[in-house]
Amino acid sequence: MIQLSQEYITKVTGGVSSPKGFEAKGVHCGLRYSKKDLGVIISETPATSAAVYTQSHFQAAPIKVTQDSLKQGSELKAVIVNSAIANACTGEQGLEDAYNMRADCAELLNVDPELVAVSSTGVIGEHLDMEKIQAGIKLLKDTPAGFGDFEEAILTTDTVMKQTCYELTIGDKKVTIGGAAKGSGMIHPNMATMLGFVTTDAAVEEKALHNALREITDVSFNQITVDGETSTNDMVLVMANGCAENECLTEAHDEWPLFKKGLLLVCEDLAKDIARDGEGATKLIEAQVKGAKNDLEANVIAKKIVGSSLVKTAVYGTDANWGRIIGAIGHSTASVTAEQVEVFLGGQCLFKNNEPQPFSETKAKEYLSGDEITIVVRLCEGEGNGRAWGCDLTYDYIKINASYRT
Amino acid sequence: MIQLSQEYITKVTGGVSSPKGFEAKGVHCGLRYSKKDLGVIISETPATSAAVYTQSHFQAAPIKVTQDSLKQGSELKAVIVNSAIANACTGEQGLEDAYNMRADCAELLNVDPELVAVSSTGVIGEHLDMEKIQAGIKLLKDTPAGFGDFEEAILTTDTVMKQTCYELTIGDKKVTIGGAAKGSGMIHPNMATMLGFVTTDAAVEEKALHNALREITDVSFNQITVDGETSTNDMVLVMANGCAENECLTEAHDEWPLFKKGLLLVCEDLAKDIARDGEGATKLIEAQVKGAKNDLEANVIAKKIVGSSLVKTAVYGTDANWGRIIGAIGHSTASVTAEQVEVFLGGQCLFKNNEPQPFSETKAKEYLSGDEITIVVRLCEGEGNGRAWGCDLTYDYIKINASYRT
Repeated sequence: MIQLSQEYITKVTGGVSSPKGFEAKGVHCGLRYSKKDLGVIISETPATSAAVYTQSHFQAAPIKVTQDSLKQGSELKAVIVNSAIANACTGEQGLEDAYNMRADCAELLNVDPELVAVSSTGVIGEHLDMEKIQAGIKLLKDTPAGFGDFEEAILTTDTVMKQTCYELTIGDKKVTIGGAAKGSGMIHPNMATMLGFVTTDAAVEEKALHNALREITDVSFNQITVDGETSTNDMVLVMANGCAENECLTEAHDEWPLFKKGLLLVCEDLAKDIARDGEGATKLIEAQVKGAKNDLEANVIAKKIVGSSLVKTAVYGTDANWGRIIGAIGHSTASVTAEQVEVFLGGQCLFKNNEPQPFSETKAKEYLSGDEITIVVRLCEGEGNGRAWGCDLTYDYIKINASYRT
Repeated sequence: MIQLSQEYITKVTGGVSSPKGFEAKGVHCGLRYSKKDLGVIISETPATSAAVYTQSHFQAAPIKVTQDSLKQGSELKAVIVNSAIANACTGEQGLEDAYNMRADCAELLNVDPELVAVSSTGVIGEHLDMEKIQAGIKLLKDTPAGFGDFEEAILTTDTVMKQTCYELTIGDKKVTIGGAAKGSGMIHPNMATMLGFVTTDAAVEEKALHNALREITDVSFNQITVDGETSTNDMVLVMANGCAENECLTEAHDEWPLFKKGLLLVCEDLAKDIARDGEGATKLIEAQVKGAKNDLEANVIAKKIVGSSLVKTAVYGTDANWGRIIGAIGHSTASVTAEQVEVFLGGQCLFKNNEPQPFSETKAKEYLSGDEITIVVRLCEGEGNGRAWGCDLTYDYIKINASYRT
């Protein structure tokens, strides 16, 4: 049991099917050669749901369909997800396909189409094979739930599945929050997308759920960067089905901060897993910025640091190259006073008073040889704190991205 | 002779010492092992001057000294430049060293220190060896001018010198504008900086020169990106000494647009040369954005395209991967309507009506095998046009930047 500032939240083995009343499945429908490529999360009761979407001007068809479902009411019974083909930049036909995918899934579950969300990830600019999707949805019906099957079905070229689960207590009820994600940069040419799915058996009021998701996404999924790209299909969806039978959570509820903390932990775990599995990555890099003018500026600077190609290559090369960290901080628009900035790596201060500080290169190199690197920056401008996550930039990133589409 | 919308401007062989009344020198003073590392441009009469500087919060000491010189009057007799050490993040001692470098150069020329600008490029966080600098300045006095010596002395790990020169006629006077630059990304760990020096024998009013430099920098040097980093030492300096004896140019002068065009061509040539010589680069990439809401938005999108790691690796891999171009356009804040966007490569339309268009992969691959790649995007939002330049992202970028500091 991890103590979190007086709150008790337990990390447990599990994922999106762990909260009561949820099941998750995955099958191979033939969009990919042999791997699972179609998955569904089903809630036994309609779940209060909220989602955030890519800011790209080229939102994919499934994003539009999910937005439509959530505009017609905040409840969902299921989300159907395919990998291999993103159904993005596919015109009118693509939109029709995404609506048909929703209708087929709704029919399987015998519910209104508006209770189903749709999500896709994979190659941009290719149409879905709807016969395979339809056959796959039938197959899903007859396939028993298997732990990890959904998580596997949503991957493209990720190297590992991403799932996490936390338990907490609201009143006298045990509440579980589970999550699954995919994303590893646009690994395969034209492949893209960061997807996050969070389920909970907590009863949560819709507006509170929506606000919490937006706020938490900003400090978790929006604070990771693999290559600075935004996909056409990015989406994070949270479904709360109330099966835990807790008193419905609102923003005024005494235990709302505890639930939010649980939701944050789930999103943060998934976000870090995506960064760690970035294309060609060998290390997770965390930037912690303290004492910024406000949290927003701290987050901006933290993301600049983990997004810098020069910082990323230096970490890959186990080089305690603080000049590149200074470079990344220097060209942000946030309030920075050069003379007040301090840079720390593995407990050593590298830069202070606008001058280099003596430090052990050997110790720094040893620290950088680990697989989780934390860069700490103090700005002394105010009380703002922020974090961001990324990965190192390696030969494999080039190899993966410069190879021809297949 | 190139015809430029009724204007006649001739590109000639030459550089910063080509305009009348300028000489440029370069010597080896010992900051580097054997290559030239100290250079000076001297104008025989005080030259009306203007400069633009890095926006980094960590402006290097020489930047502060040059700003001081130009605050005390807009005239310069000389600029002294060293490579190898950036004199950035060097505290009070660094600032004193930069002022001493200015004083020593002024003494050599027998002028007020305020008539001298100072510029440095190289490793961040190391102090200048002032004995070597002082000896070098004396050596410069006794060394005859040699074509290309200055250009060589300002390089760090650039693979080629960057210089250009144009001639035009103002009234009945021949006016020459020459330029030199360095910059290739932060090639060597901790090495940085884009420097541009432009000289002209035109007589130009100070305010007009300053406005023109700012405006032109925005569409030339500010539209290149190698790795999205801003150095602590970036500077572009223009010196106009009036030795051509033309009627002094103001913004109201009939031939002001002609002079500005000449200045733009010089800056654009240098900017493109820097992008082409980007770390590990094998190709120059130009993005042309047409029909944006305005020029500013067109420039923002063009820079997003050439700045995208995924576009850069695709070009390296000769992959006509329009999905990545769409990705880069998609996550800009500019006005974009997906259904109206058209993407062209080598004369072929790849994307239109929010759908992929049929095109010859063979022809596209052949086009991408060249060493200058132009990506054209039409937005149909308005009359705004913009361009930006970058380079491909290759294994050598990683090799160069992941190797340990030496």
